Amino acid sequence: MALLVQKFGGTSVGTTARIEAVAEKVCRFRSEGHDIVVVVSAMSGETNRLIGLANEIMDEPTPREMDVLVSTGEQVTIALLTMALKKRQCDARSYTGSQVRILTDSAHTKARIRNIDEERMREDLAAGRVVVVAGFQGMDELGNITTLGRGGSDTTAVALAAALKADECQIYTDVDGVYTTDPRMVDSARRLDHITFEEMLEMASLGSKVLQIRAVEFAGKYNVPLRVLSSFEEGSGTLITLEEDSAMEQAVVSGIAFNRDEAKLTISGVPDTPGIASRILKPISNANIEVDMIVQNVGADNRTDFTFTVHRNDFKRAREVLEGVASELKAREVSGDSKIAKVSIVGVGMRSHAGVATKMFEALSDERINIQMISTSEIKVSVVINEKYLELAVRALHSVFELDKSEIEA
Amino acid sequence: MALLVQKFGGTSVGTTARIEAVAEKVCRFRSEGHDIVVVVSAMSGETNRLIGLANEIMDEPTPREMDVLVSTGEQVTIALLTMALKKRQCDARSYTGSQVRILTDSAHTKARIRNIDEERMREDLAAGRVVVVAGFQGMDELGNITTLGRGGSDTTAVALAAALKADECQIYTDVDGVYTTDPRMVDSARRLDHITFEEMLEMASLGSKVLQIRAVEFAGKYNVPLRVLSSFEEGSGTLITLEEDSAMEQAVVSGIAFNRDEAKLTISGVPDTPGIASRILKPISNANIEVDMIVQNVGADNRTDFTFTVHRNDFKRAREVLEGVASELKAREVSGDSKIAKVSIVGVGMRSHAGVATKMFEALSDERINIQMISTSEIKVSVVINEKYLELAVRALHSVFELDKSEIEA
Repeated sequence: MALLVQKFGGTSVGTTARIEAVAEKVCRFRSEGHDIVVVVSAMSGETNRLIGLANEIMDEPTPREMDVLVSTGEQVTIALLTMALKKRQCDARSYTGSQVRILTDSAHTKARIRNIDEERMREDLAAGRVVVVAGFQGMDELGNITTLGRGGSDTTAVALAAALKADECQIYTDVDGVYTTDPRMVDSARRLDHITFEEMLEMASLGSKVLQIRAVEFAGKYNVPLRVLSSFEEGSGTLITLEEDSAMEQAVVSGIAFNRDEAKLTISGVPDTPGIASRILKPISNANIEVDMIVQNVGADNRTDFTFTVHRNDFKRAREVLEGVASELKAREVSGDSKIAKVSIVGVGMRSHAGVATKMFEALSDERINIQMISTSEIKVSVVINEKYLELAVRALHSVFELDKSEIEA
Repeated sequence: MALLVQKFGGTSVGTTARIEAVAEKVCRFRSEGHDIVVVVSAMSGETNRLIGLANEIMDEPTPREMDVLVSTGEQVTIALLTMALKKRQCDARSYTGSQVRILTDSAHTKARIRNIDEERMREDLAAGRVVVVAGFQGMDELGNITTLGRGGSDTTAVALAAALKADECQIYTDVDGVYTTDPRMVDSARRLDHITFEEMLEMASLGSKVLQIRAVEFAGKYNVPLRVLSSFEEGSGTLITLEEDSAMEQAVVSGIAFNRDEAKLTISGVPDTPGIASRILKPISNANIEVDMIVQNVGADNRTDFTFTVHRNDFKRAREVLEGVASELKAREVSGDSKIAKVSIVGVGMRSHAGVATKMFEALSDERINIQMISTSEIKVSVVINEKYLELAVRALHSVFELDKSEIEA
């Protein structure tokens, strides 16, 4: 008998038939004696429909009213799911974010949760009811409706789990867990039974779009065990926790993440003086362009080269900004390449293992893949390579780090 | 400078283009210096779409969840209208029923308003903002979302007007006012400038479906001047107030109402004893069939005939019930007729004028129309006739009572 918070996303509740399937699943858990709080998103397509209506009126709709508008999406789902549960003799009650109440700040369309009143939910759970909560929304201190921004239902689920000190927060999606790498690229990619929050954060931000980063951060902060599993198939999914798995030897590398949405820009021959990095990057950030990797090489003759990556959509604009910077700084040259890919190995195990980076570079060298940039963190090594070698690199690294073998053997 | 509550129904806000037109209209009133509270319904079709979703899951959806579901319809409209107002530099703020707050009892799907907190609305009005309120909904003391039942947005508007002591409650519809009779039937039908609540109630319940009966009752009870006008055309509409128009001589008859949705049932030769009416009608009402007109003739030989009308949809069922009653009471016969129509003359003026009924009967007799049933109230005389004479009867009465002439001359 556990207290579980279960979150079902837009695809999982996309039709009334799918809502009935979710009700089936929830009832099964309930009949096993678990206490259940369900968090749901809007039916898939609904949020876009509502945003479309708003855009017929205004290009940049008033944020307060946008929240009033889009929050109706989840409200529809909680009502329908609660009906589907009641139909199955599974007592249930729905709550909007305001009703729970999930108190947020007043930053409409991107509010942050401040406090959750778990009193009413506890009463319902004690009375044997399933509690169905609208994800993605809350209210501020003045009673205005707020939303947490798109995809924020994951965050709602984690926040409720933290407030209720739930045994587990289960995120049901259209994949059955977190993989060692993208199974569409590597046949032998394997579902991980267990991963740490840190690893998940590195995997998520590098392109394994299973969970919202903010939700993972939140779960890590409040130590809420998080499980990713499939809405449509049976299986235990991937459990994400604070601690490494001590019961077995941890793999050095847990997964290979990659990203082909980036482009690389280099400004060469800039004066090697203090403050040069900010003089280069400030105009970029002022243009609202996000920068990912940044590498500065040691220079000669008091000159240095400076390279960074941006999203591929921002490549042209970033290059224009950089040309301006270059002429100001009397730099030698601006060059760029949008046909690059980033590949990363991720794993808490590498903290205690020397030579992981070397092993990675050797593996790429064996495949004659040239490394253009390198960047490292405690639990991650990322390289930028020519886009056309991406598949080759991912497969080689997946094999070298033995990710196709089961965790027990690793 | 007046305080106006303006209500726009589903057709008036059926598309974003129409919502923009409503915003245009509201801004115009605002720029004339009036304080405005706007009440809106769901976009036409939306409530039915939501009910359709619920019915895909359950035939008789849980009432509490039904309210959570359908209340999203108006919530979408308040957000969109507020955006359209802000776009026009007309400051505005939206409120759901819960946010206002409109406190109701807990009778989900047919709740009644208990109390309205006008504090927040007053603050907004004082700050020069238009207040946009979702019609049709409220919340109970426990914070559950409730709805007032279909069409209840009129009631919301009147209740807000009463709470705010507004100068006028304006109901914008797809007709430009209340007519002496249906203009589709009588070419010379004339829009009434003024009518009393009592007259409006008799007109509404008799088939002039311009306003919800409950809203009119409410307006009468709290003496809120009510005005019906067109969303789409200019014009001053029809003002509905408590008092008769003393400034001019009041017409004896204000309008001709009619209804062809009824059917007539007669049980003949029942014992003429006390309690016979209830013995006949109780089984009908137990079967949840509503009865409209009831006529009992004086009988002979301690036997009497008893006739009543029901909605045509209930005719077959009511007849079956009545057959049972007849055999119990050893009645002579049960007969029925579904090809009937009811025609009524309505007017507060008839209180002080004798002979109005006689004039009506003579007019029908002149057209050789047989009267099957008669029923009267203080401000109304209704007759049941053969359906095929309906148009003829309405036109004759409209002319005899000089309703095609302007009120000043009457």
